[in-house]
Amino acid sequence: MEIKVLKNILGANEQIAEKNRKLLDKNKVFSLNIMSSPGAGKTSLILQTIKRLKDKIRIGVIEGDISSSLDAELIGKENVPTVQINTGGACHLDANMLNNALENMPLRDIDLLFIENVGNLVCPAEFVLGAHRKVLVSSVPEGHDKPLKYPLMFTEVNVVVLNKIDLLPYINFDIEAFTRAVKGLNEKAEVIQVSCTTGEGLERWLDWLQS
Amino acid sequence: MEIKVLKNILGANEQIAEKNRKLLDKNKVFSLNIMSSPGAGKTSLILQTIKRLKDKIRIGVIEGDISSSLDAELIGKENVPTVQINTGGACHLDANMLNNALENMPLRDIDLLFIENVGNLVCPAEFVLGAHRKVLVSSVPEGHDKPLKYPLMFTEVNVVVLNKIDLLPYINFDIEAFTRAVKGLNEKAEVIQVSCTTGEGLERWLDWLQS
Repeated sequence: MEIKVLKNILGANEQIAEKNRKLLDKNKVFSLNIMSSPGAGKTSLILQTIKRLKDKIRIGVIEGDISSSLDAELIGKENVPTVQINTGGACHLDANMLNNALENMPLRDIDLLFIENVGNLVCPAEFVLGAHRKVLVSSVPEGHDKPLKYPLMFTEVNVVVLNKIDLLPYINFDIEAFTRAVKGLNEKAEVIQVSCTTGEGLERWLDWLQS
Repeated sequence: MEIKVLKNILGANEQIAEKNRKLLDKNKVFSLNIMSSPGAGKTSLILQTIKRLKDKIRIGVIEGDISSSLDAELIGKENVPTVQINTGGACHLDANMLNNALENMPLRDIDLLFIENVGNLVCPAEFVLGAHRKVLVSSVPEGHDKPLKYPLMFTEVNVVVLNKIDLLPYINFDIEAFTRAVKGLNEKAEVIQVSCTTGEGLERWLDWLQS
């Protein structure tokens, strides 16, 4: 007897994510799903990367926010193709939202696509989008205990960018404890220390990106 | 003909929240649901409040985290009744989790109960717990644009505690724009500026708490 297996919602999401990946590959677009807590510096990292790379490669940005288009307006000033997704309350991007956004992106004219997720250290980690790499932006003011409290996010990502290191003199933050906790959850994830305000460490981030 | 209306999940949550409120009222416990982004300073605010008030009133704390008991261990050192809820992945506390925790609290021996929610600026705003007031801890490093990007949270709360004002000299943060955005969403919400590191502004927070 044949047994029919119905797809669940997560299955549907994964199916659309695969479709997104194929579409990106077909157009030779390399894509990053950028995640973080609210205000850790996703937009700043994207902006600083655009400023340093836009003469070498063609960049596009998809901005995910619950509401407002503040970040898309900031990015738009750099004259790169930008699409804003407003989730209308949803706490994460999903593959279908990305699919809609990709339809509005000139994919043939892009080499590198940043997908900025909703600021949330929990839910976005549970939904694949189809992006090639997952990047977590963590920040010094959040404290070095975050990997232990939000383990799924730190486990899921390919790289952890520790932002706002210019604030280290004013905050009790133990970089060694942070790095040890990240490595304990995710041995392969590199931890890259940067300050999007002073520019410190961004070279190493660009090296990772180009490798 | 009689029409049966089935309760949905949110209805169930609200029903249990009412039960929680009755249990708290019966035991004359005043309770606060403390919410914020990861690392904004919920635990620090609770700790500083305990240090200043524990000789005057009897305090209890329920700690909500996805995993770990780091915060409960910190609070426990102050010798106040503390219960840790581990949500096991869930991105917010719900009324049923609180109900289980309340059963493990000596409610007759408590006047003021802090309920520290999971660090998340989105989902916790959608679930009532039965607490008497909702407190949002926002922090300077997150940036002054947060009310516009996470409007539900800022709309739902009774008070916004803006923490980490000791970092104002080092960060581009416009307090006036922040306050204006909060008031635009939630006219009644007071904005209280504090630093849990230096103690600045905590008197005003204690005044609000006692009023």
